[in-house]
Amino acid sequence: MELTEKTLKSEEVYHGRIIRVMRDEVALPNGRTGVREVVRHPGGVGILALDDDFRVPMVRQYRYAFSRELWEIPAGKREPGEEPLETAKRELLEEVGATAERWLPMGEIIASPGCYDEVLYLFLARGLTFGERHPDEDEFLKVANIPFTELKDMCLSGGIQDAKTVIAVLKAKHLMGI
Amino acid sequence: MELTEKTLKSEEVYHGRIIRVMRDEVALPNGRTGVREVVRHPGGVGILALDDDFRVPMVRQYRYAFSRELWEIPAGKREPGEEPLETAKRELLEEVGATAERWLPMGEIIASPGCYDEVLYLFLARGLTFGERHPDEDEFLKVANIPFTELKDMCLSGGIQDAKTVIAVLKAKHLMGI
Repeated sequence: MELTEKTLKSEEVYHGRIIRVMRDEVALPNGRTGVREVVRHPGGVGILALDDDFRVPMVRQYRYAFSRELWEIPAGKREPGEEPLETAKRELLEEVGATAERWLPMGEIIASPGCYDEVLYLFLARGLTFGERHPDEDEFLKVANIPFTELKDMCLSGGIQDAKTVIAVLKAKHLMGI
Repeated sequence: MELTEKTLKSEEVYHGRIIRVMRDEVALPNGRTGVREVVRHPGGVGILALDDDFRVPMVRQYRYAFSRELWEIPAGKREPGEEPLETAKRELLEEVGATAERWLPMGEIIASPGCYDEVLYLFLARGLTFGERHPDEDEFLKVANIPFTELKDMCLSGGIQDAKTVIAVLKAKHLMGI
C-alpha cells in the first residue's frame, strides 16, 4: 500500500521568531485532496550530563505554554548551519556552565510527528568540568544537580514529563547498565 | 528566584483545523518585555498494546511534516471533553481494531515544552481481542505486530524515533520487568 502524500499547494500562514506555520493542500493516497498543517521548527539538542558522582545538572524553567515550571535536561535550538554536537556543547556551557571530555550520541527523536517537524538530537556527556553559566538574555533558569537514580525514578513515576528528558534518562540507564 | 512570565497581550495569529497559534507579549522575570509563540494543540493519547505473546500492534504512517513513513504506537487526538482513557479505547479500536480488558496509565508526557502545548497520555493495554479496523477517512496506515523485544531494540538503537513510542516502550519495559 502506497502511503505517500504529495504537496499540491503550500502556503505560509505564519512566519514568527522561532516557528513558521505552513498550511498545505496534499493529494492523499486515495486520490482525494486533504489539508496538512505543519509547524516548522529549527530543531535542537538535549544533553544528559553525568558527573563522576552520577549526578545530573538539571534545568528548571518557566514554560509559558504550560503556565508552570518544568524540570528538563539542558537543551536548546540549533542555529542555522550548526552541527548538533556544536549546539550541545554551546547549550551545556550556556545553561549549566559545564564542559565535557566525552560526548556520546544517543540518537534523534521526533517530538510530535503529526504537525510539528522538530527533531532533537540527544547526547550523553561525561568527564564534566563546571564553570560559570552564560544564559541567553531572555532565558531565566535554575540549575540543580540531581542524582541519576532519583532522576530515573522521577521519569518513571511521571514526576518528570518532558519527553526529551524522559528518553535521555531511560536511554542512558540502558547504556550505562544502571 | 521568581521565573513566572505574565501575559501582557495575546494575539491569535493562526486558527487552523488542528492547531491554533498564539503570539503573546509577556513580562519577563527581569521586568523586560518578551515575545512567546505558542502552538495550541488538543493533546492526545498513545497506546502500547501488548498481546499474550508479547507482540505489539504498531502503526506505519506517512508523516507529511517529515516526508516519510514512521513506525508509531497507535495514537490520536482527544475530542473536546473526551477523557484520555476514552480516546485511547477509541483510537486502539479505530487504528488496529483491538479492544483491551486491562488499561494501565503510564503517565503524561509533554512533547516539546518550548512552543507547543501538546500533552499526551500514555497507556499500557493488556488482554487484547482483535477485530476489524475503523480508520478515519483521511488516515492511511499499515499495521504490523512486532515482538516487544524487537521493538525495545528499535527504540534503543534509534530505529524508532517517535518520542511517545520510545517512552511508552521503555516505561513498559520497566513496568513489566522485561
